[in-house]
Amino acid sequence: MAGGEFSFIARHFGPLAGPEALGLKDDAAVLAPTPGQDLILSADTLVENVHFFSDDAPDLIARKALRCNLSDLAGMGARPRGYLLTIARPNAVPDSWFARFANGLATDQEQFGLSLLGGDTTASRGGLVLTITILGEVPHGRAIRRDGARAGDDIWVTGTIGDGALGLLARQGGVPDPDHYLTGRYLLPQPRLGLALAGIASSAMDISDGLVQDAGHIAQASQVSLTIRTAAVPASDQARALRNVLADRWLPLCLSGGDDYELLLTCPPDHSDAIRQAASSARFAITRIGSVSQGKPGVELLDEQGRRFSLSQAGWQHF
Amino acid sequence: MAGGEFSFIARHFGPLAGPEALGLKDDAAVLAPTPGQDLILSADTLVENVHFFSDDAPDLIARKALRCNLSDLAGMGARPRGYLLTIARPNAVPDSWFARFANGLATDQEQFGLSLLGGDTTASRGGLVLTITILGEVPHGRAIRRDGARAGDDIWVTGTIGDGALGLLARQGGVPDPDHYLTGRYLLPQPRLGLALAGIASSAMDISDGLVQDAGHIAQASQVSLTIRTAAVPASDQARALRNVLADRWLPLCLSGGDDYELLLTCPPDHSDAIRQAASSARFAITRIGSVSQGKPGVELLDEQGRRFSLSQAGWQHF
Repeated sequence: MAGGEFSFIARHFGPLAGPEALGLKDDAAVLAPTPGQDLILSADTLVENVHFFSDDAPDLIARKALRCNLSDLAGMGARPRGYLLTIARPNAVPDSWFARFANGLATDQEQFGLSLLGGDTTASRGGLVLTITILGEVPHGRAIRRDGARAGDDIWVTGTIGDGALGLLARQGGVPDPDHYLTGRYLLPQPRLGLALAGIASSAMDISDGLVQDAGHIAQASQVSLTIRTAAVPASDQARALRNVLADRWLPLCLSGGDDYELLLTCPPDHSDAIRQAASSARFAITRIGSVSQGKPGVELLDEQGRRFSLSQAGWQHF
Repeated sequence: MAGGEFSFIARHFGPLAGPEALGLKDDAAVLAPTPGQDLILSADTLVENVHFFSDDAPDLIARKALRCNLSDLAGMGARPRGYLLTIARPNAVPDSWFARFANGLATDQEQFGLSLLGGDTTASRGGLVLTITILGEVPHGRAIRRDGARAGDDIWVTGTIGDGALGLLARQGGVPDPDHYLTGRYLLPQPRLGLALAGIASSAMDISDGLVQDAGHIAQASQVSLTIRTAAVPASDQARALRNVLADRWLPLCLSGGDDYELLLTCPPDHSDAIRQAASSARFAITRIGSVSQGKPGVELLDEQGRRFSLSQAGWQHF
């Protein structure tokens, strides 16, 4: 590590470091795990012009990167503990960019209660590449996994579905977004941390790839069939306002578009009150959208009349 | 994550995953820390044509990436527990490349006793970018840090110094390397895991940036002066054979060239027998190369006659 790197790290990231980071001066962080807790670990790489645009606000890039990882913790029922950050940076990115980037991290560190544990900066020959490895904790044996859905369970989602995909489309100028709500949902997702899932949900995950695809992940991991009543899937007022504008494209975008960062979970029916209560305590909306059954692992979509249909990029069709 | 990504991950990285990785099917790994142990965490990003060459053997790229991170653990006195790997990959890198890359990881996982915990793959618009986050464990409070060196301590190094830099030069055709020893030292460093440092060393780190620069890191962190008797710094026979070839460039290359991945440590003099015994048990050579004193934080180099001198890229000069 060259002297300039030390200065760069100390200036921008020193203020973000928790005590476990040893001032970002050692090669590694030293963390005392909380006794009786399991550690939850997730790593994601974000690439310029793949996951974010070069002209996105640096503080929002930082916050979204952190929030996507926090959302992975939320999907396991964990609380955040800290994160490591590596940055491969082209020479062209100015110091002021990183000052704003670090400000964004500081904002969300405070909001979500975690600190920087360590990391690395290096040169990039291509665009900017960011990797966050996040650590969370959950009481031993109580992490919620994808493979616990059972026939007879109900399917639930937090918040509203489709805002992320519609927000991206709005940002690209494809649809109006008069109050910037959808764009905001895309740029700054809200990780659903703090929902007490242990002992209530049989499986859970965060929705990053789109509701239908992520439901498929639970179906595959749990070897069950998930049936979703699409008319029950909650949409925001702003999303519903685009229904006529987008016509047949609306439903596929909402159900498959991704970037929602809501939670998808399954619960036995006798835990319905408990999950509603947990959501109420966390101040999240929660909606029952379907049920789990035995059968070929996969996802079945039902329309308002209970007829099965399938999605495609162009729209949807009945079987 | 698209279907193709799942298949890519399952094919190449599924066999590397430990039980904590949940089959690489969840968004996160679940790890039960060993009671009474602190967790050591380090993350490094490696960029194509910055840290490795496009035509390097994929298995060696993988093994060096893992070993550089293992070396960080060795520098803290930790034992490896597992790692996360993220890959940003250009379309041009063929599947067969990753098969060989994963084989390299498998080889070193077995050799060093750790497994893959999780990670992420994504597209890259530039070259290949790899990030490894490694986890180790050390008994609570026994991690060896950089800030513990005290006036009166001796300075020690494991193995031999300079092979990494000379190996890189040999690989570039700059010097002969008839038995490929130096090239091997550059391409496949040996992390000095298993050296029992706790209670013996006052500070330690692995030498990745070059002996002098890394000694400077200990000096700064500990706020002490490190004096190195350069004639005592151990060099391999193959390194010494290049002394006449490189003339004045030899010493700066060996002392500042980096990529050694040996350990640099400080010990109180009454721990000399203990550190020799620990090195002998681990089957590492260990050599005393200097001493720690009060004074302006920094590194002083002494020649065979005990005269101070300084290094530059062009060679060295006496004060």
